[in-house]
Amino acid sequence: MEKVFISAGKIRGLKALADENGRFKMMAIDQRGSLKRMLAKVLSKEADEVKYQDLAEFKTIIIKVLSPYSSATLVDPIYGYPNAIKYFTKGTGLLLCSEETGGEKAGKSGKEIKSSLISDWTVEKTKRTGANAVKLLIYYRGDASPDVVNHQKEIIREVGRDCRQYDLPFVLELVNYPFLPDEEKDNATFARRKPKIVKDYVEEFSRSEYGVDILKVEFPANLKFAKEYCQGEFDGVKREALYDLSEIKGFCREVTALAGVPWVILSAGVDIDEFVENVRIATKSGASGFLGGRAIWQGCADYYPDKEAMEEWLSTSGVNNFKRLHQLLQEATPYFEHKKFKGFPNFYLEKKGPDWYQQYES
Amino acid sequence: MEKVFISAGKIRGLKALADENGRFKMMAIDQRGSLKRMLAKVLSKEADEVKYQDLAEFKTIIIKVLSPYSSATLVDPIYGYPNAIKYFTKGTGLLLCSEETGGEKAGKSGKEIKSSLISDWTVEKTKRTGANAVKLLIYYRGDASPDVVNHQKEIIREVGRDCRQYDLPFVLELVNYPFLPDEEKDNATFARRKPKIVKDYVEEFSRSEYGVDILKVEFPANLKFAKEYCQGEFDGVKREALYDLSEIKGFCREVTALAGVPWVILSAGVDIDEFVENVRIATKSGASGFLGGRAIWQGCADYYPDKEAMEEWLSTSGVNNFKRLHQLLQEATPYFEHKKFKGFPNFYLEKKGPDWYQQYES
Repeated sequence: MEKVFISAGKIRGLKALADENGRFKMMAIDQRGSLKRMLAKVLSKEADEVKYQDLAEFKTIIIKVLSPYSSATLVDPIYGYPNAIKYFTKGTGLLLCSEETGGEKAGKSGKEIKSSLISDWTVEKTKRTGANAVKLLIYYRGDASPDVVNHQKEIIREVGRDCRQYDLPFVLELVNYPFLPDEEKDNATFARRKPKIVKDYVEEFSRSEYGVDILKVEFPANLKFAKEYCQGEFDGVKREALYDLSEIKGFCREVTALAGVPWVILSAGVDIDEFVENVRIATKSGASGFLGGRAIWQGCADYYPDKEAMEEWLSTSGVNNFKRLHQLLQEATPYFEHKKFKGFPNFYLEKKGPDWYQQYES
Repeated sequence: MEKVFISAGKIRGLKALADENGRFKMMAIDQRGSLKRMLAKVLSKEADEVKYQDLAEFKTIIIKVLSPYSSATLVDPIYGYPNAIKYFTKGTGLLLCSEETGGEKAGKSGKEIKSSLISDWTVEKTKRTGANAVKLLIYYRGDASPDVVNHQKEIIREVGRDCRQYDLPFVLELVNYPFLPDEEKDNATFARRKPKIVKDYVEEFSRSEYGVDILKVEFPANLKFAKEYCQGEFDGVKREALYDLSEIKGFCREVTALAGVPWVILSAGVDIDEFVENVRIATKSGASGFLGGRAIWQGCADYYPDKEAMEEWLSTSGVNNFKRLHQLLQEATPYFEHKKFKGFPNFYLEKKGPDWYQQYES
């Protein structure tokens, strides 16, 4: 069997992100732009009127109540981490995001997206805080304009290099978007293309040149267009059937086949019932868990700024959402059983030997 | 109440070292010189004939079986960590030692000790591996020659500075030694001086210029010379009574009063029964737990190189030793209740605010 070599910081980081069984039960509360819009709605304000303190408090309450249920929690270094740091319990891994929220509109259509990194923030700082991983969200369409595609790839390579330098796991999150003339966020054309879009980016960013350790990817279909769920099961809207669950499982298995590293499912703002189905199907098909955000906690936003009511919702419904997801994780593939590793006996510390401590880079 | 400011990496590191309740149940397996001598005896060899592989295997087995019972495990980056890295479970904190084993004989008597750091190893490397703290062992007598004292202090300051730079907790271990003409390792004169020696170094290294986060100190008396234990209770050797338990508790309380940071008790090769008494008295008197080594695991050495027998001893007697210590920890002072912090509500992230992520240094 081929040996796999891994560095000290990467293996220690992966252990911190997963649960005791090597499965990822991760929560995301690193939203910025989408959270401002969510709170603006609740507060009947414009998004740019939502204050720093609103985001800080909202995130802190969620981390306080729910992060102990996660194997690791993803937060931003601007509003979230500095305010909620005390509430991270021992054994809760920490991921910090590295991308600027949103992105710059690009391409001929003006609908393509170029990402950038948070200015005045670095992988080096992330490491210094004691975080266990760097997360980078890239909006990605492989069929976008070449200069947009290259721009996005270059950011990924840059973060990958920095994560190698500081010996920290790199979690790459990919989110596609509609930009072709016949595509809309919720139309059938876009939903039909989703499986291929997801599979293509999983294949691309599994290449070692990007240095990714975990892929955080979208469910490779839109369940609202599945034969079994297109009668409005999730949101009351009827849609045409584009694929059935057996085909969708096939898409997930193809993602597993293409993923050169362990992969987890993101929640992308779907509600908890749909996310539970996503996680159920994905983990039965080779995913190593989830990194879910709004699906788990968004119900508490209705109560903001009543913090007591928020906490009550989180401690009951929020915890329940988490527990529904936990139950599904039995079937997820532990990261160390992923085909990259094939079990602990098959992987080796890089440069292991009596002079490891000398060879290990600083 | 006076506010206490703490950096992100230090608070995250402290959480990783303590258990969920803020108490330190730490195991040390970073021995090198003393372990070579221990294995040499078992293998009927000279210490310098003991091989790299012997130390590596011996440490790996202990870490595999016992580290899950510790809140954190201290290991060396030469023999231990590169070999045992896979066996660190999620939630087991990691400390790496930074000092060269032993030391250089110094002073007029030739019995004083100058320490040095492991060459080709740094705090930066320690941080990069994903460790949660740096541990530095310094042999120390405040009444040694000025050049020896200054040398030792300078190393401590250097490591303290580096730990601030890389934002990693600094655990300073202090071990005294006999060097005056009337002192011997096991004589009454040395035992009588021990309380003052320990209190003096605790006071000295609590000064903020050293940047210490946790003091790992000796029990401030020799229990074998306690009125209640001087009839050979621990080793069959009768000794004179120098102090009684009530005085010894007083010494521990004085250590607590002098310690500017949380302190833990080290085991220094005493057997488990004596260490249990040390931990019982210290934790009732303000210590935040223990960082114990040989007292917990040394019984397995008799079986080396029979790894199966070693594992059997560790999984039964070794685990039992750990559990005896765990039971005592209820009375230990959680680090966050130490007078430095006085509870979480009283301590604040350094430079907290909307621009924290910009101000935080890289």
